[in-house]
Amino acid sequence: MSGTLYTVGMGPGDPALVTLKAAEVLRAVPVIAYFAKRGRTGHARGIAEGMIAPAARELRFEYPFTTEIAHDDPAYRAAIDDFYDRSAATVAAALDAGSDVAVLCEGDPFFYGSAMYLFDRLRTAYRHETIPGITGMSACWTNAGQPIVHGDDVLTILPGTLSEAELAARLRQSDAAVIMKVGRNLAKIRAALVTAGLLDRAIYVERGSMDGEVIIALRDLVAPSVPYFSMILVPGRQEVR
Amino acid sequence: MSGTLYTVGMGPGDPALVTLKAAEVLRAVPVIAYFAKRGRTGHARGIAEGMIAPAARELRFEYPFTTEIAHDDPAYRAAIDDFYDRSAATVAAALDAGSDVAVLCEGDPFFYGSAMYLFDRLRTAYRHETIPGITGMSACWTNAGQPIVHGDDVLTILPGTLSEAELAARLRQSDAAVIMKVGRNLAKIRAALVTAGLLDRAIYVERGSMDGEVIIALRDLVAPSVPYFSMILVPGRQEVR
Repeated sequence: MSGTLYTVGMGPGDPALVTLKAAEVLRAVPVIAYFAKRGRTGHARGIAEGMIAPAARELRFEYPFTTEIAHDDPAYRAAIDDFYDRSAATVAAALDAGSDVAVLCEGDPFFYGSAMYLFDRLRTAYRHETIPGITGMSACWTNAGQPIVHGDDVLTILPGTLSEAELAARLRQSDAAVIMKVGRNLAKIRAALVTAGLLDRAIYVERGSMDGEVIIALRDLVAPSVPYFSMILVPGRQEVR
Repeated sequence: MSGTLYTVGMGPGDPALVTLKAAEVLRAVPVIAYFAKRGRTGHARGIAEGMIAPAARELRFEYPFTTEIAHDDPAYRAAIDDFYDRSAATVAAALDAGSDVAVLCEGDPFFYGSAMYLFDRLRTAYRHETIPGITGMSACWTNAGQPIVHGDDVLTILPGTLSEAELAARLRQSDAAVIMKVGRNLAKIRAALVTAGLLDRAIYVERGSMDGEVIIALRDLVAPSVPYFSMILVPGRQEVR
């Protein structure tokens, strides 16, 4: 009988923010799998350090790219699809051999998680269970001490890759917003926030819940460049007390 | 010295989805506080059953209303503000006496959480730490087996209380959506989804991650009435395989 595919949300970075269920699965499965950048531990694998059974076999899938590439580049799509296909085949072989496999995923797997690309390829052929995780954005608003939405607020989650006009239009229609993938989109995002009249409410967060966490009002940020996975929060209406 | 205010995310309902950190705080604090409806255990308190120190003192705050009341009714606002003020004063007294207090909160505290109404009132006067939790919506998309957003998808989180026209307009502009507070807004939400051309992608979830969980394509739902805290998911673009 083939094994079960566990897709395990590892949360934002602090190992204490892993769920009891995720910790239990990590202790029990004989095979764990994860993505990593070349020469790096892999974010999800780093969080799992010390939680995995000592005898577990590790399947490490190293991304074929080391830099940020436009996702609409056809050469990128072909290469990344091939990479995910080969990774899924490796996981499938372990499942076929009867082993349960836990695919580690930063944050919450079904919320922009990298593990979905394996899940999407394996879900119809294997028994599967997914364990949700704390999202990176939740760690950011929690550590910033900023309730993001109350009552009937509308929250919009936007990638920083949208055009300035589109960002501004969507920001104007939201009570609260989270802008992901800031990186080299910072100047554009800042301009969109100014247009939408929201610069003074915006908070910049880098490495939320990890070592080196930075939380600062965006208007006070002077860094010329910031990491890709930084985030900007626009909290919703606050209780007026 | 006064105690620390812990605001603890208890997740969506399954006690195994509590984080290691939340479990540790629950074991350690001498006072726990939570909201509950009249005659009910309280959702967050129910999840915490078996995790709390046996000697812990419990502060139970019972909502002054038993039915769904329009939040823009001035009488409601005055009564609920008074209720939150009195509850905050009770927590403050325990903190002043030197006890740490854990306020339990369903889901993720800063994401539409009830505990924010205490946090907002106490944050400036007391040391505080907030522990994020798995959101109800995350349990819903996970248990539905539905990745909600990939890549550069825009996700909008909407209260079902919006007008039909506003819901339809916002749905048309999103790659993915979560509609909360379905309850008596169901017919209106369904009409907005039809207008936006999204009915066939919509999934209805009731009691996500709890006993009696229901997950069904919205087009197949025939229930004449549904609970207030049910949810509708519109997953984003899927990987085409």
